[in-house]
Amino acid sequence: MPSVVYFYHMISVVILGAGNVGSQLCQALDAAEDCEVIQLYNRTEVSNSQLPDHIEFTTKINEIKQADVYLLAIADDAIAGFSEHLPFKDSLLAHTSGTVPLHAIDNKNRRAVFYPLQTFSQNRSIDFNKVPIGIEAESEADLSLLKSLASSLSEKVMELNSNDRSRLHLAAVFVNNFSNHLYHIAAEYLEENSLEFDLLTPLILETADKISSISPEDAQTGPARRGDLETIKKHLALLNDGPKKELYKVLTESIQNTYGKKL
Amino acid sequence: MPSVVYFYHMISVVILGAGNVGSQLCQALDAAEDCEVIQLYNRTEVSNSQLPDHIEFTTKINEIKQADVYLLAIADDAIAGFSEHLPFKDSLLAHTSGTVPLHAIDNKNRRAVFYPLQTFSQNRSIDFNKVPIGIEAESEADLSLLKSLASSLSEKVMELNSNDRSRLHLAAVFVNNFSNHLYHIAAEYLEENSLEFDLLTPLILETADKISSISPEDAQTGPARRGDLETIKKHLALLNDGPKKELYKVLTESIQNTYGKKL
Repeated sequence: MPSVVYFYHMISVVILGAGNVGSQLCQALDAAEDCEVIQLYNRTEVSNSQLPDHIEFTTKINEIKQADVYLLAIADDAIAGFSEHLPFKDSLLAHTSGTVPLHAIDNKNRRAVFYPLQTFSQNRSIDFNKVPIGIEAESEADLSLLKSLASSLSEKVMELNSNDRSRLHLAAVFVNNFSNHLYHIAAEYLEENSLEFDLLTPLILETADKISSISPEDAQTGPARRGDLETIKKHLALLNDGPKKELYKVLTESIQNTYGKKL
Repeated sequence: MPSVVYFYHMISVVILGAGNVGSQLCQALDAAEDCEVIQLYNRTEVSNSQLPDHIEFTTKINEIKQADVYLLAIADDAIAGFSEHLPFKDSLLAHTSGTVPLHAIDNKNRRAVFYPLQTFSQNRSIDFNKVPIGIEAESEADLSLLKSLASSLSEKVMELNSNDRSRLHLAAVFVNNFSNHLYHIAAEYLEENSLEFDLLTPLILETADKISSISPEDAQTGPARRGDLETIKKHLALLNDGPKKELYKVLTESIQNTYGKKL
């Protein structure tokens, strides 16, 4: 297989899993130079109009083609079992998870990781160019192949061991999952009060954009940061709902403690 | 004064306070049509190279000029006292705070509010065009004048009473102050582990951008949302630091409760 890579300068890829990550990798790699998505496998039929028509699709594990790299984009807890049941061996098989260790992959294949640090949702196309891709493999040759593949998508490719990947993923949970939950809390609260959530859109975008030029530590503003107990009291009175009030308290205390002022 | 407005079609503005909000309003109104910033007052001298040179500046309360609108951009708890000490009366005086009620302004002037729903930081210029501006006044004439002024900056101008303004401000604390604090937590954690915070920038931007097309409720992903107890356990083990672990737990529980799955 390495000779094929050398001859064509073209990395052949099969994508296993057509969920959000698999579908978007499929589109992005299909559009990239230096690699070719030759097949997309999914357990069940998929109806995703954004998937390129010309890419062969299969639901049959025995029909999976030979490729330079297999990208495994399935649920975390399915990685070990699925990799065990694959009908081929000695191939380069990279999962795309933030938390699953490389060693979870069955060792009949060459185990690796290809982790794009981004959130993927249906109907949102990601520009991979700025997306950091963390790669991990068991040999220099595999690492080099994955590096070429990742570089065809992104300008930010890095070696990342399983421990550091877990840590990055944990930090990602804070900025992505938890922030989004705060958006949701705000949306609910505004809806309860017949106010439009859309009014917050420019603020949300500026909050996110700001940290490209100011550290989040310096960017911190608001009643908790400036020790404005009057406003905090007013806000707590507005929040008659238990869970929202609890979150407000915990986050306010955390900010106050961070900046050295106690409530 | 209304006749002046009518004749020149030009609203004269004095800005009281040259902090982040006052400075940015000064720049933006100076660049806008249909209004003219004739003076900027601040308690102390300021050194802000971004302030337009041609605008008269004063630190003397007795030298404040006559204007159609005075925009009061000072600390929340200074609004009442400062408005009391102003040497003029019967003028239109609008504060810019999210939480202070209109009635906090001394009633020797025509009280009003001009609230731009955005976060303002030093060295970041805000494009006011998309910034919602909530206005409140005690007469139709003043409301109309403020509406004209706000419309010269933004396409999103709305009447907003003091109660709804407080509620919007509270929601803004969730999406802005609290999200930014989560960015800070992530930055600290990555720094402790010698990983770059910059790696999260594309994720943070996409998380914020996504809610323009997907509701935050539908956009929610991550271990808490999908009930992935394995990953949650792993993350808690990685967080040996008390406060971060506490926040992780509280936010994870809140997501689980929101989506009907208990931990």
